[in-house]
Amino acid sequence: MYRSHTCGALRESHIGQEVTLAGWVQKTRDKGFVVWVDLRDRYGITQLVFDQDRTSAELLEQARELGREFVVQAKGEVIERASQNPNLPTGAIELLVRELKVLNPAATPPFTIEEETDGGEELRMKYRYLDIRRNPVKEKLLFRAKVALEVRNYLSQQGFVEVETPYLIKSTPEGARDFVVPSRMNAGQFYALPQSPQTFKQLLMVGGMDKYFQIVKCFRDEDLRADRQPEFTQIDCEMAFVEQEDVLQAFEGLTRHLIKTIHGTDPGEFPRMTYDEAVKRFGSDKPDIRFGMEFGELNDIAQHKEFNVFNNAELVVGIAVPGAASYTRKEIDALVDWVKRPQVGAGGMVYVKCNEDGTFKSSVDKFYDADDLANWAERTGAKAGDLICILSGPTNPTRNQLNMLRMELAGRLGLRKSDEFAPLWVVDFPLLEFDEESGRYHAMHHPFTAPKPGQLELLDSDPGAVRANAYDLVLNGNEIGGGSIRIHDKDMQATMFRHLGFTKEEAREQFGFLMDAFQYGAPPHGGIAFGLDRLVAILGGQESIRDYIAFPKNNSGRDVMIDAPARLDQDQLKELNLKVNLG
Amino acid sequence: MYRSHTCGALRESHIGQEVTLAGWVQKTRDKGFVVWVDLRDRYGITQLVFDQDRTSAELLEQARELGREFVVQAKGEVIERASQNPNLPTGAIELLVRELKVLNPAATPPFTIEEETDGGEELRMKYRYLDIRRNPVKEKLLFRAKVALEVRNYLSQQGFVEVETPYLIKSTPEGARDFVVPSRMNAGQFYALPQSPQTFKQLLMVGGMDKYFQIVKCFRDEDLRADRQPEFTQIDCEMAFVEQEDVLQAFEGLTRHLIKTIHGTDPGEFPRMTYDEAVKRFGSDKPDIRFGMEFGELNDIAQHKEFNVFNNAELVVGIAVPGAASYTRKEIDALVDWVKRPQVGAGGMVYVKCNEDGTFKSSVDKFYDADDLANWAERTGAKAGDLICILSGPTNPTRNQLNMLRMELAGRLGLRKSDEFAPLWVVDFPLLEFDEESGRYHAMHHPFTAPKPGQLELLDSDPGAVRANAYDLVLNGNEIGGGSIRIHDKDMQATMFRHLGFTKEEAREQFGFLMDAFQYGAPPHGGIAFGLDRLVAILGGQESIRDYIAFPKNNSGRDVMIDAPARLDQDQLKELNLKVNLG
Repeated sequence: MYRSHTCGALRESHIGQEVTLAGWVQKTRDKGFVVWVDLRDRYGITQLVFDQDRTSAELLEQARELGREFVVQAKGEVIERASQNPNLPTGAIELLVRELKVLNPAATPPFTIEEETDGGEELRMKYRYLDIRRNPVKEKLLFRAKVALEVRNYLSQQGFVEVETPYLIKSTPEGARDFVVPSRMNAGQFYALPQSPQTFKQLLMVGGMDKYFQIVKCFRDEDLRADRQPEFTQIDCEMAFVEQEDVLQAFEGLTRHLIKTIHGTDPGEFPRMTYDEAVKRFGSDKPDIRFGMEFGELNDIAQHKEFNVFNNAELVVGIAVPGAASYTRKEIDALVDWVKRPQVGAGGMVYVKCNEDGTFKSSVDKFYDADDLANWAERTGAKAGDLICILSGPTNPTRNQLNMLRMELAGRLGLRKSDEFAPLWVVDFPLLEFDEESGRYHAMHHPFTAPKPGQLELLDSDPGAVRANAYDLVLNGNEIGGGSIRIHDKDMQATMFRHLGFTKEEAREQFGFLMDAFQYGAPPHGGIAFGLDRLVAILGGQESIRDYIAFPKNNSGRDVMIDAPARLDQDQLKELNLKVNLG
Repeated sequence: MYRSHTCGALRESHIGQEVTLAGWVQKTRDKGFVVWVDLRDRYGITQLVFDQDRTSAELLEQARELGREFVVQAKGEVIERASQNPNLPTGAIELLVRELKVLNPAATPPFTIEEETDGGEELRMKYRYLDIRRNPVKEKLLFRAKVALEVRNYLSQQGFVEVETPYLIKSTPEGARDFVVPSRMNAGQFYALPQSPQTFKQLLMVGGMDKYFQIVKCFRDEDLRADRQPEFTQIDCEMAFVEQEDVLQAFEGLTRHLIKTIHGTDPGEFPRMTYDEAVKRFGSDKPDIRFGMEFGELNDIAQHKEFNVFNNAELVVGIAVPGAASYTRKEIDALVDWVKRPQVGAGGMVYVKCNEDGTFKSSVDKFYDADDLANWAERTGAKAGDLICILSGPTNPTRNQLNMLRMELAGRLGLRKSDEFAPLWVVDFPLLEFDEESGRYHAMHHPFTAPKPGQLELLDSDPGAVRANAYDLVLNGNEIGGGSIRIHDKDMQATMFRHLGFTKEEAREQFGFLMDAFQYGAPPHGGIAFGLDRLVAILGGQESIRDYIAFPKNNSGRDVMIDAPARLDQDQLKELNLKVNLG
């Protein structure tokens, strides 16, 4: 037995007991006549004490020689602490050590193992096993485990069954790039790693499994942006004999349960908004509704004067920024510059200060009078003291730009509170979206999403207008889940493939098994998938997912700790019938 | 709403209620004036009734036209069933249908969807989604989910934390072949899929995570034998600050909990046996102890006569087969032939019938008298009515052959009861085993296993004699789990790599990160991993794992349902800088 208690266990009630602890040396304080050592493990910190009155000189010397992160075992008596530390659960006691054993010494760590570390991102990634010792990272991993367990227990109690689907599947050209796995036994052939278990969960519905879920790793070989990982975890769910309303109810239940369990607050019934409304009111299909600053479209009240920037624009749209009328000229100039950054890409920003005294001051005073500006204020909901920011241009990019501005300013104003949870269902997504690059329509969700009843005929005449029973669950401006009611009719699925540009042969080769399955009695079905990494981060009140992943990869998809990926030796390549061709 | 109740929900108490059901047509019985339809879903079967007195002619005709596996929705009134079926939970009622809707018709399935099917293995694999509708397969998947959830909840309650480790890692030459994944972003380099999260879980221990578990997919590119899958699921566990005893106690607790929860019986304290003892007494490191038939070594009492087969053998060893003295000549000849099969590979089998009257009849009566045979009977524990089967030859193969004979005969005698659970810890495994093919020692468990304290020096003089703190958990003759106490000292790890034939550079390149980690304060640690597929099968009382896997692969590693693996197109290969070279 290496220990009788953990470093987080001892309290006043243990005073007088002989105990054994084991853990890491967090720090040592040497006052000459007395040495204190903070001993740390997963469960907490306990203070060890060595002093010249009660400790042998040899032992005291041994304590002095302990370095940071040494692994030690200490036996002794729990005693009352002279100066108690109310911030530490074990702060009422300390351990008077009688026997000390170094289980493993430690080299000086490359960064400090404390709440705040001096280690940069790359160094922390390389020595991730040391970073995990730090409380903030450790707590995030424990939190993730807790959320995952809650999800499993809640869904199981609701009759969902966790079924493991295969990782070695088949590559499909649709969607993002697959990671592939060469097969040695089937020479020249490749498996693919799943981007999601989509087709398998649908086959489980055809198989009568009815209510399925799985917490499962998925893989996407995309060029990585910050906070994207090549492997990520999904809570994947599917139900049979359901309409959209059943799916929304079921997973609103899950999400409410998580928020209640974790934060003790009931977010109530989740509001719903159509995709069209979300885009119009917030310029985004994942609006953050923790705060207002809704879009006000100004075309009818701004396009009647000499200001050609507005007159020539497809859309003129503004938001009221609460309390920002007091911004200085410099601050406003900075804002004007901010929207011009390539990431935002907007042209000029027009602003109107709604002064406390009811007057207005705008960057377009030359073109508009006070009545005009008052109308704009009314449309954007601006009150005295607010600043109206207006962008104009082609509809979609302008909405997108104003959305970025809205989110940025809300962040600066502290309106994106990490302890507030505002879930929202966005529904009635378009079935297809036009891709400029390939010049054709792609499935917005995926090719298995069903159009809304009666809209199938629109596919030929106005594909972009077709709406689907597809929905996203948005939490605090992040899409945490998305799903749809699926096609369960083989003819409709064939029609869909045709509209997505598949030839009959391609559809057959890629998805023949699914269309076959639909022949043998497929039930109506639908589902949803949550991104666990992001869900956990948002529930934890954080923006970045990285510290919720035990061993993340960097932006080049590398694990810098184990130094992967790496070259293979020739024998291994030969066995796989492969040649690397860097030409 | 597609249904108000499931097909397993309705009871006598629902009589008189209007309900809606949805499901699959299991079968239709048409008696002319009345048509019964068995409607099936995941939850059960409910009988629908249509009759000419209470049902419109049109509806009756519609019911007649339903084919097997049609997906239908039926509305009507729950009524008392005239001839109740006590074998069906819903057997007291039936649904008098007023409205019937075909949600999806079905082609005739390629095999019958019933308890026993007429479908062969390959056909069932190809249409796995139909096979899953069959009760025995569905129940196995539900059972698996239940076991996995129990494991998660039990371990979490014991303070273990589930941490997800990465799937895209680095290939290592040790052990079985890796599946690899070419990286597009890191041209010419490859990830590997984990054979187990071994090094990551050790790094989590270095990271202070203390008690870790994970239910995780692992991958091995081996030539497949029956009942081996290229991807399989492991319950992977690790603990810090532990000795072997702590690990055994923790996972004995888990296994006992599973047996108790699932079967309601307490297997008591698990017996323990050293590897050497297991091999000597049962000829196997995973003995089935549900029954006796222990080995009796006969060298000292059989090698003193003229029978040179025995005199020249390294080992003469027998087992008593209960009640088999009555075997006919023909039956014994068949047994003699059975041990000669290439799979067993034994030479001649000597037998002794222990007759009920106390006399003996053996195949070596020419060489041995009754006193000799009585000694053999005593040594093997044979009683009147038993048959002693004796094999001889070099020690290891002979033990192995007699083990196969013991298992075969116990199976024939019904001694391997599927509802009896006999767990056993096998401990003190050899650290290394000699591999004839490569002419060197390999790690028996893996290169991270610690030798027993004080045995490190034996590594040079007698490597085969070194024992490790390595253990297997055996259940009914199957290894369901295995683990060890790990090395946590970087010098000892370096020594181990050297003994396993790694150069310093190779060790550095492959496992440098682990040896680095050991520098920064690695705690003593150890763990275990269970094969979930097999554990679930054995707990379910079955031999084969295949039906406990939703979408298994065949013996060539193919998924015959989706037809994977498959060729990639040239563009995809080019993007990955790969050429297929089948030459």
